[in-house]
Amino acid sequence: MKFKIAILGAGNVAWHLAPALEDAGHEITEVYARDFDKANQITERLYSTEATDDLDFSESRAQIFILAVKDSAIPELADEVILPEGSILVHTSGTMPLDVLGYSSASYTGILYPLQSFTKGRKIDFEEVPFLLEAGDEETLQKLKKLAKSLSPLTYTVRSKDRKGVHVAAVFASNFTNHMIRISEEIMRRQGLDFEMLKPLIIETISKSLQIGAKNAQTGPAIREDYETLEDHHQFLNYNPSIAEIYKLISQDIIDS
Amino acid sequence: MKFKIAILGAGNVAWHLAPALEDAGHEITEVYARDFDKANQITERLYSTEATDDLDFSESRAQIFILAVKDSAIPELADEVILPEGSILVHTSGTMPLDVLGYSSASYTGILYPLQSFTKGRKIDFEEVPFLLEAGDEETLQKLKKLAKSLSPLTYTVRSKDRKGVHVAAVFASNFTNHMIRISEEIMRRQGLDFEMLKPLIIETISKSLQIGAKNAQTGPAIREDYETLEDHHQFLNYNPSIAEIYKLISQDIIDS
Repeated sequence: MKFKIAILGAGNVAWHLAPALEDAGHEITEVYARDFDKANQITERLYSTEATDDLDFSESRAQIFILAVKDSAIPELADEVILPEGSILVHTSGTMPLDVLGYSSASYTGILYPLQSFTKGRKIDFEEVPFLLEAGDEETLQKLKKLAKSLSPLTYTVRSKDRKGVHVAAVFASNFTNHMIRISEEIMRRQGLDFEMLKPLIIETISKSLQIGAKNAQTGPAIREDYETLEDHHQFLNYNPSIAEIYKLISQDIIDS
Repeated sequence: MKFKIAILGAGNVAWHLAPALEDAGHEITEVYARDFDKANQITERLYSTEATDDLDFSESRAQIFILAVKDSAIPELADEVILPEGSILVHTSGTMPLDVLGYSSASYTGILYPLQSFTKGRKIDFEEVPFLLEAGDEETLQKLKKLAKSLSPLTYTVRSKDRKGVHVAAVFASNFTNHMIRISEEIMRRQGLDFEMLKPLIIETISKSLQIGAKNAQTGPAIREDYETLEDHHQFLNYNPSIAEIYKLISQDIIDS
């Protein structure tokens, strides 16, 4: 099933999603951005899509309208956009509930949340992007499933309540693992040491963790309850109280769990 | 340059290191463990190495003795082992200083610290294991460099002071990233959700972080200073005060740095 789709937004998600949808055989009718030039940057990556900065889509041929903008912009945009009869409006956010689209002119609403970290210019293999889906009615959900499955085999139907859990879990799994690497980089830099020497360890750790589970994969002074080393490391980190506190708290949680 | 090597210890490091040294052309003369059967489990993986539970190595043909035991066992073992004249004694610890070998009967001392996470039964490619080296004298350091380079191109000479920094950095990069995944697993399990859906995100996050640096790779509510989502997530985690506190502290550090 091929759809006619309009995309509202010109950020990282729109930048990746628009060409992927086109590659999957759908037609991208319009790309909207408040800043016309930004919309144009996306349409340049597509075959024959109109760039627009006008929220009146009453004459659009699109069946599905994808709101791929930052969370805070979703409510206002949903309220303001003028959609044709019978259209489906979805957003791509991991945090916003479905009912944020409730006052829009859409006939049907849904969520199409790609659970991946997008960076402009960095290639994403959509076959490995999980899509978390939700819709106001069963028929819309089936359409969104078909749309998502045209991009990736990894589609999950997740209610708003659970989607929040997924998002919190994703913050730990992604943002916080990344921040641990950030702190690690800074400790090495401060000592004048080459961060390269830690990369094989990081790759092996993550690979092992995903294969046998993080509980079984844990090593280090905390899980060994090596209090002497823990105290020694804590002292070492004294120059940065915030990092020292993070060291203490996570170590304690490893010991307790 | 090929060496005759004895290994003291039968844990994860010995289990991986002994066959790797043999594959690199060195001769493993003996493997020692306090429990003879454990020594035997390692020698079974080698061509013709003697298993022993006797610390008298005065008749050994080995030139280098590798203490691959847990940190707390190093001082006592170093003191008790009887070594032949001219022998080099090294340990494989990331935390213990060189002088912990100072009272041993060894003529020369050093450190050969493989910066990797070892698990019995899990294959390690030694070509990608960084070795951090230190020695009491230049000639010994050169020998350890030759030994390490026979296993891996990634060898670094690091003083004890800096080795501690590397170890603290490694705790963040490995143990703590793993614990973030652990917490993430538990949030998903508690919601009855499939952790599989987070794996592509984790792989992409780490890959991006190592490629463009963790600072540039950061995404999520904290770096966006999206206080509403941060507060919402913190509330969501109320069921576990320790995890809620970790969420708060790391988010604040992301905002501050």
